[in-house]
Amino acid sequence: MINSVKTIGIIGGDKRQLYLADSFIKDGYKVILGGFDSLKSVGEIAISDVKSALSYGDIIIFPLPSVRSDGSVNAPFSQGNIYISDDELELIKSKPIFTSFREKFIRAYPKLKSSPVFDYSSREDFAILNAVPTAEGAVQYAMSAYEGTIKGSNSLVTGFGRIGKVLSKMLKALGSNVTVSARSFEDLAYINALGYKAENTEELKSIRGYNLVFNTVPAMIFDENLLKNTDRDTLIIDLASLPGGVDFEAARALRIDAQRALSLPGRCAPKTAAEIIKSTVLSIIKEVNW
Amino acid sequence: MINSVKTIGIIGGDKRQLYLADSFIKDGYKVILGGFDSLKSVGEIAISDVKSALSYGDIIIFPLPSVRSDGSVNAPFSQGNIYISDDELELIKSKPIFTSFREKFIRAYPKLKSSPVFDYSSREDFAILNAVPTAEGAVQYAMSAYEGTIKGSNSLVTGFGRIGKVLSKMLKALGSNVTVSARSFEDLAYINALGYKAENTEELKSIRGYNLVFNTVPAMIFDENLLKNTDRDTLIIDLASLPGGVDFEAARALRIDAQRALSLPGRCAPKTAAEIIKSTVLSIIKEVNW
Amino acid sequence: MINSVKTIGIIGGDKRQLYLADSFIKDGYKVILGGFDSLKSVGEIAISDVKSALSYGDIIIFPLPSVRSDGSVNAPFSQGNIYISDDELELIKSKPIFTSFREKFIRAYPKLKSSPVFDYSSREDFAILNAVPTAEGAVQYAMSAYEGTIKGSNSLVTGFGRIGKVLSKMLKALGSNVTVSARSFEDLAYINALGYKAENTEELKSIRGYNLVFNTVPAMIFDENLLKNTDRDTLIIDLASLPGGVDFEAARALRIDAQRALSLPGRCAPKTAAEIIKSTVLSIIKEVNW
Amino acid sequence: MINSVKTIGIIGGDKRQLYLADSFIKDGYKVILGGFDSLKSVGEIAISDVKSALSYGDIIIFPLPSVRSDGSVNAPFSQGNIYISDDELELIKSKPIFTSFREKFIRAYPKLKSSPVFDYSSREDFAILNAVPTAEGAVQYAMSAYEGTIKGSNSLVTGFGRIGKVLSKMLKALGSNVTVSARSFEDLAYINALGYKAENTEELKSIRGYNLVFNTVPAMIFDENLLKNTDRDTLIIDLASLPGGVDFEAARALRIDAQRALSLPGRCAPKTAAEIIKSTVLSIIKEVNW
Repeated sequence: MINSVKTIGIIGGDKRQLYLADSFIKDGYKVILGGFDSLKSVGEIAISDVKSALSYGDIIIFPLPSVRSDGSVNAPFSQGNIYISDDELELIKSKPIFTSFREKFIRAYPKLKSSPVFDYSSREDFAILNAVPTAEGAVQYAMSAYEGTIKGSNSLVTGFGRIGKVLSKMLKALGSNVTVSARSFEDLAYINALGYKAENTEELKSIRGYNLVFNTVPAMIFDENLLKNTDRDTLIIDLASLPGGVDFEAARALRIDAQRALSLPGRCAPKTAAEIIKSTVLSIIKEVNW
Repeated sequence: MINSVKTIGIIGGDKRQLYLADSFIKDGYKVILGGFDSLKSVGEIAISDVKSALSYGDIIIFPLPSVRSDGSVNAPFSQGNIYISDDELELIKSKPIFTSFREKFIRAYPKLKSSPVFDYSSREDFAILNAVPTAEGAVQYAMSAYEGTIKGSNSLVTGFGRIGKVLSKMLKALGSNVTVSARSFEDLAYINALGYKAENTEELKSIRGYNLVFNTVPAMIFDENLLKNTDRDTLIIDLASLPGGVDFEAARALRIDAQRALSLPGRCAPKTAAEIIKSTVLSIIKEVNW
Repeated sequence: MINSVKTIGIIGGDKRQLYLADSFIKDGYKVILGGFDSLKSVGEIAISDVKSALSYGDIIIFPLPSVRSDGSVNAPFSQGNIYISDDELELIKSKPIFTSFREKFIRAYPKLKSSPVFDYSSREDFAILNAVPTAEGAVQYAMSAYEGTIKGSNSLVTGFGRIGKVLSKMLKALGSNVTVSARSFEDLAYINALGYKAENTEELKSIRGYNLVFNTVPAMIFDENLLKNTDRDTLIIDLASLPGGVDFEAARALRIDAQRALSLPGRCAPKTAAEIIKSTVLSIIKEVNW
Repeated sequence: MINSVKTIGIIGGDKRQLYLADSFIKDGYKVILGGFDSLKSVGEIAISDVKSALSYGDIIIFPLPSVRSDGSVNAPFSQGNIYISDDELELIKSKPIFTSFREKFIRAYPKLKSSPVFDYSSREDFAILNAVPTAEGAVQYAMSAYEGTIKGSNSLVTGFGRIGKVLSKMLKALGSNVTVSARSFEDLAYINALGYKAENTEELKSIRGYNLVFNTVPAMIFDENLLKNTDRDTLIIDLASLPGGVDFEAARALRIDAQRALSLPGRCAPKTAAEIIKSTVLSIIKEVNW
């Protein structure tokens, strides 16, 4: 299929979609941007309108997230709300459409139910690649909030999933003494084999001697009880998706500095986040092999 | 259970079991060694006989592998063949017994079928921890066989399983330009996220520009066809368990240096291999929680 | 001497001196702080006044920098200006006094000319240890200003002195493709041996293909001419002490993002900066061997 | 000058000089080899005789070392002894000649005293670049002699010169807990800044808890006294040039495993060693700028 794609319609989104447009243009594609009407121009990228983008694009890419709760396209650079009209849906219903959170998107635009609508955000490779900007964002966050250097610090990463794997590598590379906690014997063996100290997440009864704690487990790990047994000058950064893994109220009461850090790829590294959307879209196209 | 273990019977095996004995002794256990009669003494470790080891041990540990094809215990440091007699089996039939390749062991000693016989060699954590001495052995092998330095070399690791993960990290740490091949999009995403170049194993049509190739995939990857499209001065090291992943005959005919490197933990790092047996046995004891 | 030091007088300074006080207290010293009158309290550290600190301290530590151009002590946490009176000078004239930029300090307080006034800031080990918080500050700066990830970026570090050595290691550890420029054959050989790409600083005629450039050379490297041959989307961070190595006016005219990042240890990692002051003071005491 | 060099005469030497020939040929030079008469052929490299090499070479390269104590060329691949005759000296006396240990070479061939004879072996960049194959050789040596893995080992590197710098980096990258000893405050600060534990070489009174010790200091560090306070299962590898830094006799008496490892670049990585000779020769040519 990829050979027949010449023009790409990009609808809505933030800086990431602008970098995405830029990157496709550098590869020789034509890109039509819709939903950026509050921008006059973006370097050499022409800004058009939603209808043109939908009508001339061989494939259509929606942002992350694709739609808001009212069904309008997530388009922070647009002054008005953007709803795709029935006429416009007609234009794209047989084109490959790339969205995030497909189910919500289809709920907003049920006419596309039988269309080739792909969800790049649900793919495992998308999530893995995003672990890099997430981990860098977490490191930047820690560098900014912690008054010592990462080098020489004692850090704990809870969880050895995608983010845990990349983040612990990064912290160690910067010279931190890294402990990683996990639950399975397999993960604990990998943690050991890759050179970190290992702790069993389920046996964490106190957090002593750590300057920095990064939680990646989407479950209540740092409850009031554990926080009561945590050094007061430990900085806790919660990277787990909502509702997260830290009882922030208890932390406040105990005067422990605990902070949430979410959506790091888009906020800290939109250019890289764009490359990841691009490579995931291209992987889907390659796999589908239209 | 672990608290009730005071004496450990170790039957047969090579240097690893001697280091294993040594390590348990340093932790305060009493160890009785059987099946080492060709050794006079081993430092401060007393050498006894099989019957004493079986009779006084609270737990019994057999080596890796545990039995030979004739049913005798794998005991290279014993002059004769060691078969456990029925009387001896009676002594241990209700004791925790730690073996490798349990099925083969039970086939040799069916009377132990209902005994608590554990297989440390089949555990995932055992395999993961052994990836470290295996990867170091592979690096040592490459350092010795390759006439350049690892630093600055171009290397390819096929497969991103246990050994692939640890080996690629090690090669990169030494300054090699590492490419890793895998098949799943997930693995390819991890390879990318962890900073290696990624190749799809299934799309390997030629091997050009690599000084070193490490195969970890237990399937015929380097067949005659691929070898014909491989640079002649590439060194290929096959780490995959038998039958391996390289057509050695074709390699010889094409004058490509391809070598098999097996059983590296026991051969290159028996002390570490012993620690891994020990920690796996302790994990089993902890899990079983007698 | 160190054994006879029981009480330490700390006069003026910012957060670093508070962390310094804290660290000495944890080691069992008594610390008297003077020049922090705008703070009510600092955790468990008692805040006293300048005269008490000078009179009870066995050694006296001044901040970095120690004095302002008007001769007053650099004391941002004091509401008024602090001048050491002749009576106060009399109190300390035979005590070991630790300052930064000794010459300027003596010019402000010539009565101490023959006193044992040591300059921790001029020591080579002080400068080397500060390369770590400086480099981390630079990385944090780059992470925040650059819209991609450090991982996968192309970076250039000009100069292979203290900061260049530590910064290039850090960038590479984070997965950047690092080029380092230097002038001597020796440095270029080390750059190569340590695994970076090497460029001769004197032969830099254009800066192409770099996302990030860190200048550590205190000489005009990035003059108008070189900037004219620099990619427009390159981010230049100048770490060299004033006047720095970048023609910022030319950069602005050419729409290249060039920024100065100075005093990073104190700003980004005051806790670590304090430890470095402490260890340098202790090294001096050890060397002098009173 | 380099542009006028078309043909290179290589006289004597071991595998390194063959790789050197190969590398120059790949760059498009013509190479004439003399002093390899016991080889029939070496891949596609033609083997000629000393006289041809001297007469047709635009520059002449002698091996490392260049001459033996009897004045003959160091030529292990030649069956007879090679002395350059007066006629032959006449042929090369105005050509650039690249040797190692120039003084000894000139003593053997005083007629070349006023010729442009350069010593690549005495250059600092040559020594620095050779630290890489030396350090890799040391690691290979340790992997082979030590029965544990480098990962998880405790290692001590004495000295933070060229080899110490590269070796400690390599050991740490492989997961060893690395301590480095040095004498100057500057070096100790760098050791700390680069993330190793630091010890003062002069204060080494005992060696406890180390699996591996690498001496790089060319002075008697490990004398009988220190060895008496060294754990008996520590492996000591002496990398310092002769007479080295270990009292081997005392070590033997104390049953400590101490070994000398010398000339590692040529023995472990002749291909890389050749590249280093080549790049040093090219640097000289560039500097001299004929």
